[in-house]
Amino acid sequence: MTLSAQTINLIGTAAACCTTTSFVPQLLRVWRLKTARDISLIMFLVFSVGVFLWLVYGIYLHSFPITLANGATLALSLAILALKLRYDRG
Amino acid sequence: MTLSAQTINLIGTAAACCTTTSFVPQLLRVWRLKTARDISLIMFLVFSVGVFLWLVYGIYLHSFPITLANGATLALSLAILALKLRYDRG
Repeated sequence: MTLSAQTINLIGTAAACCTTTSFVPQLLRVWRLKTARDISLIMFLVFSVGVFLWLVYGIYLHSFPITLANGATLALSLAILALKLRYDRG
Repeated sequence: MTLSAQTINLIGTAAACCTTTSFVPQLLRVWRLKTARDISLIMFLVFSVGVFLWLVYGIYLHSFPITLANGATLALSLAILALKLRYDRG
């Protein structure tokens, strides 16, 4: 089944929206429960490094969607990381 | 500062490795603690949909890195989702 370039771009945009916004409910949950014990610190550290690299990649590729999506994801990921460090200290 | 295409590709590959492998420590943590209460179910549902869309995007773009990275991430994300559903039922 072949898809038009426009449809493929739409799929990429929807993918970026989902993977970026998916971190909002996690941030709200940590904020509400005031705990993040089950969340892996290593995951969010490595994930944040990866998203930062995607951001650099997007900038040098002059790709606005990749830059925007990963800039937002990086902000959310670092916020979850900060809350985790704060609540784990108790 | 300009970068060669090769360096930019290297950054993209490193980014894909980080964002994919970052889910392994989270999967191991849930498996070890036998709990995922602090993890947001909505996050992993929406994130899995997004990663699936990235997979479709990579396939239609004939991009092996995007297809491989998101195929692996989807498997890890669904595994975490399955464990969360199992342990939340208690």
